[in-house]
Amino acid sequence: MTTPPLPPGPVGIVGLGLIGGSLGLDLRRLGLEVRGLVHRPQTAERALARGLVQQASTDAAVLAGCRLVVLALPLDRLLASDPALVAAIPPEVVVTDVGSVKAPVLARWQGLHPRFVASHPMAGTAQAGVEAGLEGLFQGRPWVATPSAATESEALAVVQALAAAVGARWLCCEASAHDRAVALISHLPVLVSAALLQNADRSGADLPDLVRALASSGFADTTRVGGGNPELGTLMARCNREAVAEALAGYRACLEQLERRLEQADWAGLQADLEQCRQLRPQFL
Amino acid sequence: MTTPPLPPGPVGIVGLGLIGGSLGLDLRRLGLEVRGLVHRPQTAERALARGLVQQASTDAAVLAGCRLVVLALPLDRLLASDPALVAAIPPEVVVTDVGSVKAPVLARWQGLHPRFVASHPMAGTAQAGVEAGLEGLFQGRPWVATPSAATESEALAVVQALAAAVGARWLCCEASAHDRAVALISHLPVLVSAALLQNADRSGADLPDLVRALASSGFADTTRVGGGNPELGTLMARCNREAVAEALAGYRACLEQLERRLEQADWAGLQADLEQCRQLRPQFL
Repeated sequence: MTTPPLPPGPVGIVGLGLIGGSLGLDLRRLGLEVRGLVHRPQTAERALARGLVQQASTDAAVLAGCRLVVLALPLDRLLASDPALVAAIPPEVVVTDVGSVKAPVLARWQGLHPRFVASHPMAGTAQAGVEAGLEGLFQGRPWVATPSAATESEALAVVQALAAAVGARWLCCEASAHDRAVALISHLPVLVSAALLQNADRSGADLPDLVRALASSGFADTTRVGGGNPELGTLMARCNREAVAEALAGYRACLEQLERRLEQADWAGLQADLEQCRQLRPQFL
Repeated sequence: MTTPPLPPGPVGIVGLGLIGGSLGLDLRRLGLEVRGLVHRPQTAERALARGLVQQASTDAAVLAGCRLVVLALPLDRLLASDPALVAAIPPEVVVTDVGSVKAPVLARWQGLHPRFVASHPMAGTAQAGVEAGLEGLFQGRPWVATPSAATESEALAVVQALAAAVGARWLCCEASAHDRAVALISHLPVLVSAALLQNADRSGADLPDLVRALASSGFADTTRVGGGNPELGTLMARCNREAVAEALAGYRACLEQLERRLEQADWAGLQADLEQCRQLRPQFL
C-alpha cells in the first residue's frame, strides 16, 4: 500500500519532550521545516541548540502557516486544551496528538477542531524532556490512530503519511479498544510491577539488606516499569481509569487462580498454567 | 578477608545442567580435577565433549576420592535424596547443594550427611541442560549459605572457598530468612508476571491481535520471568510453598492499596506511591 506524501509546508510540534523532540529530529532529517511551540524560553533555546526544530517559540504565532500540527503534550495538558493554543490553529490545518489514552482525547479535541485525528505513536525510553528526543525512535514501532465517524478521511491520510515518514507501523482501531488494550499491556503492568517493589520493601522489612542483596535480573526486569516516571504512571491511570480498573479486576482473578493452585497444592495445574504462559509470551514480542 | 583454599583432590558435581556445568567449566579453568555424576549416558558424553568435567559417569563410583561434592540437582531430585547417591558419599567429604529453596533441603540433608552445607549460588540464564553451562556464570553473583547450629564450620569454610574460587559474593543467613527473601524477589515475581500474560490473553480475548500488536518492551520485561521454565517455577512454589503464600498475601495487600487509589481517584496518593517505587528500585539493583 502506498501512503500519500505529507502536505507541503512546515510541520508544527507543540511540546518538544521525548516524543515531540524525536519527531522533530526525524522530520528535519527528511528535509522538512519544523516549528516548535514550547512552554518556557529555556526549552526553546535548548530545542534550537539540539536541532530539534528550525524555529522554536513560546508564542503560538510560531504555528502560523503550518499545514500539520502535532500536539506532543502530556495527557493532562492535552485534555486541558489551552484556548490560546486552540485559537492559534486555523481550521484547515490537520491536527493530531500523541497521547497514550485515546477516548478522552478524542472526545475533547473532536469538538475543538474539525480536522483533529487522535493518534498514539507507541515508542519511548525512560527519558523525558527536551534532552530526551532521539532520531529513529518510531522506526518499526506501532502508530495507532483511533478515528471516529466524525474524523475526516483526508486528515487521517495526512497523519498516516506522517507515521510512514518516520518508519512507524500504522494501525487503526476504535478509541475504546485502544484504551482497553494499552490498559492490559502497558498501564496495568506499571501497577503490578510497583506493587512488587512495595511488597519486597514492606514484607521484607525485617530483612531489608538480604532482600536487596539477593534481588537479581529477574526482579530488575519485573520491576522496571513500576520504578518508572511517577507522573506518567499516574496520568495513565487517571486518564484511562475505567479500563485500568477493569484490567486490574481481570488480573486479580488470574492471580487468585494461581494462588488457589498453591493453596491446594495443585502442582500439575500450576505447571500447566506456567506452560501456557511460556507459550503465550512469544505472541506478545 | 582471605578465604581458605579449596581442599586438594577432585571435586565431584552431581548433575551437569546450567549450574553444575558452569561450575565444572570454572573449576577446570582453575586447574582443578572435576568429576561429574549424571543420569543418562548421553549427558555424560556431551559433558565430556563440552569439557565440563574430566570424568563423567552414570555410576556414583565416579565420586570416589572427591573431597568436595556439589549436588547440582533440581529441587525435587535433591529432596528425594537417592539412597545410592547418599551411600556413595563418604562421611569425610564436604557436601553442598545449589537449590533455590533452603529450609527443606537443610532439613533433609543435614540428617543424611555429617558435613552437609546448604547453599544457593544465585546465578542463572534462561537455558537448562548439559548445553547450558557457561564460564564465569557466578562472577559477582551472590552465593548464599544457610548454616544451622549443626553445620560443621570447617565444611562451611570449604564451601566458602568454592564460592570465592568462582568469583561469587559470599553471604550467610538463616535458611528461613533466605526462603522468605527469595519468595519476595524471585518466586513471587514469577506468579505476578505469569498472571499478567494470562490476563492479557483472557481479558483481551475480544481483541487478541490488538493486544499482541501493541505490547512493547515494558510488557516484554514485566513478563519475562512469567514466561520462563514451567518446571522450575512450579518446583520453587512447591518447595517454598509457605513463604510464597505469605509473599502473595503481602503482594495482594499492596496491589489492593493501589486499586483503592484508582477507585477513590486519589491521584496524589498514587503518585506518592509510584514516587516511592522509583526511589526503592535502585536499592534492589
